[in-house]
Amino acid sequence: MNYPNGIQKNSTNNIINYGNRGMVLEDDLNITNEYYRECDIAIIYKKPTPITIHKVNYKSRDNAFIEKASFKIPSTTDYNGIYKGKYIDFEAKETRSKTSFPLVNIHEHQLKHLDSIVRHGGIGFIIVRFVTLNKTFLLMWQDIKDFIEGDTRKSIPLSYFEKKGKLIEIGLRPRLDYLKYIEVMYEKDEKRDFK
Amino acid sequence: MNYPNGIQKNSTNNIINYGNRGMVLEDDLNITNEYYRECDIAIIYKKPTPITIHKVNYKSRDNAFIEKASFKIPSTTDYNGIYKGKYIDFEAKETRSKTSFPLVNIHEHQLKHLDSIVRHGGIGFIIVRFVTLNKTFLLMWQDIKDFIEGDTRKSIPLSYFEKKGKLIEIGLRPRLDYLKYIEVMYEKDEKRDFK
Repeated sequence: MNYPNGIQKNSTNNIINYGNRGMVLEDDLNITNEYYRECDIAIIYKKPTPITIHKVNYKSRDNAFIEKASFKIPSTTDYNGIYKGKYIDFEAKETRSKTSFPLVNIHEHQLKHLDSIVRHGGIGFIIVRFVTLNKTFLLMWQDIKDFIEGDTRKSIPLSYFEKKGKLIEIGLRPRLDYLKYIEVMYEKDEKRDFK
Repeated sequence: MNYPNGIQKNSTNNIINYGNRGMVLEDDLNITNEYYRECDIAIIYKKPTPITIHKVNYKSRDNAFIEKASFKIPSTTDYNGIYKGKYIDFEAKETRSKTSFPLVNIHEHQLKHLDSIVRHGGIGFIIVRFVTLNKTFLLMWQDIKDFIEGDTRKSIPLSYFEKKGKLIEIGLRPRLDYLKYIEVMYEKDEKRDFK
């Protein structure tokens, strides 16, 4: 689960077996974002996996192959884009735990990035799938921040997701309609601001 | 100039010689965006170069090397982020031409992407450096669109950049303060909408 996203698809040394491919969160999000773009609802993309290129073989101008590269720790979250004029930014993670989401799964600077985004007026959140439970939650940055500041635990318990987050239903089209909840939760946040 | 950004830095088969390294637009923008982040002015990043991974060697969980990969045509522009609550999206290109910027330098789907972004309420533009003239311009998407729709030429002449774009001055910190012009031009655009 710690390998950078996307590797398992192309690797010839695939040692990760997800079983049912339809269960992979990244695929679900890519299909959903494609649907959002096709229907002109939102323009959201997954960023490419950051790598450092060590050796390139330039056969010709249009035919260059990377012969050696390594994975870099990402500076930002994996997904960003625009929805109804608002900047959207999120990280998506899977966990096999049935009871909690270990915060170590998100890099420290990714948390700082989400905090910056929200301070600058963007919408920041995480999408976490409890693979074994087949439950996918959306949790807004402010709720993650509240947890980190108010709790010494290194894992966010499932109950916190159930209480503060939104359970995202799996559908056909779109597969994982997370923007539906963003709208609801963001409106709630805006109301909260005007109290 | 057609190689994906960032390759020249790490390649062992470097066949591109930019001469004065300080002249490279990508470096100037990375330094500028770093400055914007440090000063908490804006959160803007260059996206990683999109690649397709063909072969990975997993030595251990934390030690995976890419042994074969190829460059993909990017679906989006290279830079995006948030500034004063607004979604920012742009592409940056250098040209050695002294008279015009060939539109072939920007992929068709990158132009479509910029159009979508602006339709969704984001700020879209290109930054073009005429390397030989040492002049760097910012041109808003609407002006690029106007040119494409009103002109059969495949290159945007320098005079169009001089008339419709903004010449970005080179400074020390920030190196290339393009957001200064965004503010001015965006305000102009907003006024235009309310006429």
